[in-house]
Amino acid sequence: MNTSLFTFDLIAKDGQARAGVFNTPHGDLLTPVFAPVGTQATVKAVTPAQLEELGATLILANTYHLYLRPGADVIAELGGLHHFMQWQHPILTDSGGFQVFSLEQMRKIDEDGVTFKSHIDGSIHRFTPEKSIEVQQNLGADIIMAFDECAPPYDRAYSERAMQRTHQWAERCLRAKTRRDQALFGIVQGGVFPDLRQQSADYLTSLDLPGYAIGGLSVGETKVEMHAMLEIVHGILPEDKPRYLMGVGTPEDLINGIRRGVDIFDCVLPTRLARHSAAMTFSGRLNLLNAAYARDAQPIDQNCQCYTCRHFSRAYLRHLIVAKEMLAATLISIHNIFTLQELVRQARRAILEQRFAAFASDFLQQYQQNKTTTSSLTERKP
Amino acid sequence: MNTSLFTFDLIAKDGQARAGVFNTPHGDLLTPVFAPVGTQATVKAVTPAQLEELGATLILANTYHLYLRPGADVIAELGGLHHFMQWQHPILTDSGGFQVFSLEQMRKIDEDGVTFKSHIDGSIHRFTPEKSIEVQQNLGADIIMAFDECAPPYDRAYSERAMQRTHQWAERCLRAKTRRDQALFGIVQGGVFPDLRQQSADYLTSLDLPGYAIGGLSVGETKVEMHAMLEIVHGILPEDKPRYLMGVGTPEDLINGIRRGVDIFDCVLPTRLARHSAAMTFSGRLNLLNAAYARDAQPIDQNCQCYTCRHFSRAYLRHLIVAKEMLAATLISIHNIFTLQELVRQARRAILEQRFAAFASDFLQQYQQNKTTTSSLTERKP
Repeated sequence: MNTSLFTFDLIAKDGQARAGVFNTPHGDLLTPVFAPVGTQATVKAVTPAQLEELGATLILANTYHLYLRPGADVIAELGGLHHFMQWQHPILTDSGGFQVFSLEQMRKIDEDGVTFKSHIDGSIHRFTPEKSIEVQQNLGADIIMAFDECAPPYDRAYSERAMQRTHQWAERCLRAKTRRDQALFGIVQGGVFPDLRQQSADYLTSLDLPGYAIGGLSVGETKVEMHAMLEIVHGILPEDKPRYLMGVGTPEDLINGIRRGVDIFDCVLPTRLARHSAAMTFSGRLNLLNAAYARDAQPIDQNCQCYTCRHFSRAYLRHLIVAKEMLAATLISIHNIFTLQELVRQARRAILEQRFAAFASDFLQQYQQNKTTTSSLTERKP
Repeated sequence: MNTSLFTFDLIAKDGQARAGVFNTPHGDLLTPVFAPVGTQATVKAVTPAQLEELGATLILANTYHLYLRPGADVIAELGGLHHFMQWQHPILTDSGGFQVFSLEQMRKIDEDGVTFKSHIDGSIHRFTPEKSIEVQQNLGADIIMAFDECAPPYDRAYSERAMQRTHQWAERCLRAKTRRDQALFGIVQGGVFPDLRQQSADYLTSLDLPGYAIGGLSVGETKVEMHAMLEIVHGILPEDKPRYLMGVGTPEDLINGIRRGVDIFDCVLPTRLARHSAAMTFSGRLNLLNAAYARDAQPIDQNCQCYTCRHFSRAYLRHLIVAKEMLAATLISIHNIFTLQELVRQARRAILEQRFAAFASDFLQQYQQNKTTTSSLTERKP
């Protein structure tokens, strides 16, 4: 069997929420886990040492970006992605599909794959399931993703077609994969349509993969629809395999996902918000550019134990932002990633102690999200 | 006496080169020492923790910039510069003079001070010696500088006038100063004119200050002229006070300065070069954007023990530069600052072991500076 290096131990369940340990060749992941995104083989503005210090364990890198630049062959030659970017803990790569399909005017899809133009130099490239696996094998992440098609969530005909294609491509990915030290996850598609989601979860379960992702969410559908889709697949996917909700996200989405059985999350949000002056806290977002913080000696969050909050005032962070100093992005990224790490750590503890429902409802009540200034940043972008 | 908290112990001399310990309220500085520049209360792209890890002890911050933004009163209210930027080791502030005089079309000088326009918003401000001291007392650095006028190096009449003004202003600064926990350094001026430099060093020595800077160098004169001026003031300034060569700089300038009795240096060079893809090494500069490094698995410098060289390849750094990732500036800044720290550490050891002449000549021989791509970056800018 291809997946013997990867085992998932479900330690505790509390309602649908799960606490587990996912073993990978680069260490154990305690789930639920949140993965910061390192699109171009760097989590923007932070060093691996800083990521390690704040407790990150899994990071995501983007196959599309690394294929184009510096090239997966270059990374393979330099010892693989772990060595290249000096992250000795688990890494997950996406399949490249989401980015390629987001190119819209610059790609052409057929049953066999996708031809697309590079956003960097307009050069023509082609991804097929086999090519995606080849590239991901060159990168060498612990968790790799099947090449899938993410359709617009409300187009039923398209969603069905994309789902079928995703299933065929998952099988091709499985056949193409040769490395034993990588776990291939399949991706459940089906838009906002319960029967399609059910069909997709059933089909992928039949492939007996080491883990499953739920794709095509957080792409424009409502929260109610997202939650409904999670609940459908929760009832179908095998309990002894980790479940990964792609591209999510906000503190409340994390809690709502964990509540519905999700084990793994990734999102650019903490680092993207940081570069736009927004700090995430357990009680909502602060826009640190706000003049009200100009003489504010408090840290972002009094209760936070991150490097930024242990040392720096809101006034200093605001000064760095106004003065356009790079350190602003670094310090706020450290804080934001730490906040999401802390949130999933607390959720895990609550599950282990069988008090997740109360934890989740307390958290959601306290969390007053102020999206007004930053809502456009929460959407997923290629 | 105003300066009792500051003592300078000359531990060893080797030719004119000196190894000492300068005591400050925020710790001892082992000299020779190189201070990275934190213009806007941050050494660009690195955290205080990273600076500490690479062995920096003294940093410089710019009075002009901090006076304008966020305001010295704001910094005072927030506990002073050490607390504001979270640097618990010694800090040096300049007087603001160099930046103000660099504004050229935007300032008007009279005997009493300088009226200038902010480069940020065009608002009108005025610095006098008393104002510079007031601002520097609000900032609260350990070492503060007398307000001086830096003339173009080859204009004798102007140099003489500026020198006289600098002397009068130094006395006014001394009278204006009230904090006992700050050491006020005077600044020797006089362009490239030996008699003026001699006169300036004599005059400032008579003020019995806790330290002396040599200003108006590294501003367009030749190396031969710079060295001649250093040698003149070396013979005059009191041996038991530290000597600070402002705005210098390159590895060879550091060695040539130490050789002529300089104890303290500061320069933006390591961080500015880093933001322009240039890595400093003991054998010259590397332009890491060079395509030759695209698959180069070596660190910047095999012999370097900095965080960057212990972990990352030239290929990775080049990738970060090409992909316009902020981490490039961070990692190269760490390396460049470390390199200058290591250079002054090695110079100090050589002085203590009475082998500085051989060390300096070996170093200068090995050091093949390649200025072609980066020469414009070595000049001082406001």
